[in-house]
Formats: sequence, C-alpha cells, structure tokens
Amino acid sequence: MPLFSRLIDKNTPIPMYYQLKEIILDEIKTEKLQPGDSIPTEKELSDIFDISRSTIRQAISDLVKEGYLYRIKSKGTFVSKPKINQDFIWKLETFSEQMKKLGLVPSTKVLELAVIEAEEEIASVLQLPINDKVIKLVRLRFANDEPIVIVETYLPYNSCLSILQYDMEKKSLYEVLSLDTRSKIYKVLRTVEAVVAGQYESKLLQIKRGYPIQLFTTIGYNREEKPIEYSIARYRGDRNKFKVEIII
Amino acid sequence: MPLFSRLIDKNTPIPMYYQLKEIILDEIKTEKLQPGDSIPTEKELSDIFDISRSTIRQAISDLVKEGYLYRIKSKGTFVSKPKINQDFIWKLETFSEQMKKLGLVPSTKVLELAVIEAEEEIASVLQLPINDKVIKLVRLRFANDEPIVIVETYLPYNSCLSILQYDMEKKSLYEVLSLDTRSKIYKVLRTVEAVVAGQYESKLLQIKRGYPIQLFTTIGYNREEKPIEYSIARYRGDRNKFKVEIII
Repeated sequence: MPLFSRLIDKNTPIPMYYQLKEIILDEIKTEKLQPGDSIPTEKELSDIFDISRSTIRQAISDLVKEGYLYRIKSKGTFVSKPKINQDFIWKLETFSEQMKKLGLVPSTKVLELAVIEAEEEIASVLQLPINDKVIKLVRLRFANDEPIVIVETYLPYNSCLSILQYDMEKKSLYEVLSLDTRSKIYKVLRTVEAVVAGQYESKLLQIKRGYPIQLFTTIGYNREEKPIEYSIARYRGDRNKFKVEIII
Repeated sequence: MPLFSRLIDKNTPIPMYYQLKEIILDEIKTEKLQPGDSIPTEKELSDIFDISRSTIRQAISDLVKEGYLYRIKSKGTFVSKPKINQDFIWKLETFSEQMKKLGLVPSTKVLELAVIEAEEEIASVLQLPINDKVIKLVRLRFANDEPIVIVETYLPYNSCLSILQYDMEKKSLYEVLSLDTRSKIYKVLRTVEAVVAGQYESKLLQIKRGYPIQLFTTIGYNREEKPIEYSIARYRGDRNKFKVEIII
C-alpha cells in the first residue's frame, strides 16, 4: 500500500503546496504516519507527487512551523508527538492536574517573584491606584521537562501577600489563593489570541522566533467581583491545542 | 506630559526590546496612544530610551506582527484599530450577528461550494464511509470589507443537501441547517490552536506569511449526536481576539 492515499490535483485553484500539506496532515491524523516516523526526502516527495522541490519545501516548512513535523540535521524530517490536548483552560483545573491526567510529568520553575509598583495597565486591570504594591510572579511550566507555557501573574499585594511564603514551584496558585476568602477566585474572564514568538518567548520556550504562540489573558475575580488575578499565559502553539464544548 | 510614562530599566534581566514592547503596549491599552496615532521614529525612540536602533526595530517589528502597529511606507508607523473582540465563538451566534453588534458591516464571499468524495480524515470526523458524498463549502468573511476569516466546512450530503439551493453569501449556515431536524446542530466541539499563515491564507486574508492565525476546528452534532458539520476556521490573529467567561 502506498504511503499516501491521494495524489495532487493539478486542475484545481488550490495551491499545490497546500494540497501536499493536507495530504501529509491526513496521514498524520489518521495515524498512518506515527510520531517518530520519518517522511520521504524532498527528492522522493518530488518524484511521488511530480511537483517541484520548492513546492515540497514550502509545505514541509509550514508543517514544521505548525508543530506537525520536526527536522534533525542530516537525518531527515520526522512526525512530531501529537499536540497536548488541553482542556483545563475552560475549567479551573490546575496545570499539574491536567498534565497528570494526560500521563505527563508537570514541573514549574519560578523565574521571578517580587513585590513591585503597579504601572498603569496592571493598576487599571486590578482596579488599584497607580504605583500600588502588587506581587509579580513569573513561572515557566514544563511537561516531561519540555517547556510548555510562560505564565506572568499580577496579584494585589494586600489580599494576596500570603503567597510570598509558599514555594510556588510546588504549590498551585489557585490552591494558595483559595485559602483566603478575600483572594479565592470565583469567576474568570479569559481572552484568547494567536501571536508569534519574539526573542524572549522563543528562548524560554525553546522554539524559533516567529513560531506561533497561543496567548491567554486571564482576569480572576473573588466573590465580591473584585479582580484578584491578572495573568498572561503564552503557550507553545506547536505543542498545544485547547478544547471546548458548547451545548446549545 | 511625556508620551511614555516609564523608561527602560537597564538593571533587570528582562530584555530591553521586550520592555519597550510592554511600554508601547501600555500606552495603547490605556488609550494614550489611539488608533491612527503615529509613534515616534526609530531615531526618536532611540533618543528617548537611550537604546540602540536595532533594539527599537525588534520591538516595533513584533508589535506590527501582533497587529498593534502598522507601517505605511515613507510615512511612518501607526497605532492599529483595536482587535475585534469576538465572543460568538463560545456561543452559537452567527458571524453576521456578532459583527453587527460590534457596529461592523459583515459580508461573505463563497470561494467554493461543491459536492466531493470524502477523503479519510473528513470521512472519519463525519463518521461516513470513505468516498461518501460530502458538501464542501469554503467562505471568506469580511468586516467592513476587511477579510477576517476563512471558513472551510464539510457536511454530509444526504442530511444537508438542501444547502445547495441557498445563496450562502446571504444565508447563515446554522440557520439553513436548523430548517431540518436531521441537520440542526445541538452541540459543538471546538478546538483552538495558534498557527501561522502560509501563502494560501496570507493571500486570502491580506497578511504576510508568518503572521499569526487563530485556528478553530469545529465539529457540530445533531440531537442524535451524529456529526453534521466539520469546519476549519482561520482567523487573522492580528485583528481578532476571543473572550470566554468561566464561572466556578
């Protein structure tokens, strides 16, 4: 049985590189190509599909950027592990619980934990006067030692200062916040955006500049509707996707 | 009052280009810089912040990619209109209703409407035998004549063939599907991913290759839990963000 179940249709307006991408993706999604499998070389693909090597290159480089394939120098191009299927983003399950459920080992590195003065944007989100004290917490989170997300969090100092006494590499933020009714989160507003990695993100997440980043901005409110948490989370777009169910 | 409310801190490990990005973003988010305003030139920014022009360039080029700024050749760099704040993605409101609510004029161009044979992935999602007939509908959707999203939809031919008699540039998909109980959608599973624009998307959405794309994959089910709709929507990441509220 040939590796690819379809050929390229040269009589449609759909670009050939795009058709090739879809053909390779189908083989990955239907698991005929499995994680770790190598795909044919440019030369071989060019022979199989009778299209130019530059067209092949365009399709492959897109699939690498999107996280479906990866390259090893002088070895070839291989099928990536599937994206981590996150659904905790729509509930308030913790990162650790979710990773464990997926059979992955979570870990966290605290990059910064400091008391700072709120500049205008943070003050405005947290409904505090400008220059009021806030706690800034920056965490890099891993699954099986692979960096997955950078989370930058701002909390009002007065209602959240107990956080300073915990080891935030071991403790969950929501767990610590829930110990005090003033800081316990009851509602969350989340905004979802697609952006690309700059130098800072690419270094921490070990991806190239220009790779996709899934950005979530979260404002968490306590029972009195006071904003308690302002977080900006940047997920590696090539390693994560997020599910939601809507019942009408 | 100076345009920028903060300076760059040269004594932190946070890269300077990243600090500059945050400073400019703050001015945009707090509306001190308004849509259409020009920002200072590289030379001026370099004088204000006392950092190199290459650092300035890196910050500005990131903000352009992320859609916060845009360049006009030999005129300068300007603040973009704010991203369209979409929340219909979490309900089943139609694109048109949502755009109208935001005061934008929606329009739709049908790029393809055809009866095709389902290849493996589509057949598997729609739970049909391979090569069964499906309807393929590809639409490009605009807000105020600006392209916003490409939506590629697959529907089982037997339960949805009535769609072929409607003008899908005028009609809403969910509206047409709801006319028949076999095709009326009761539940939707949606997956969210950040990817980047390839040549095909960039041409249709009028953005550069490598710009961020917010991808939504939707499977819609009828009351009998039979999959009726399989859609892949690619939103311009630089012009859209999506909101969700979670109550615990």
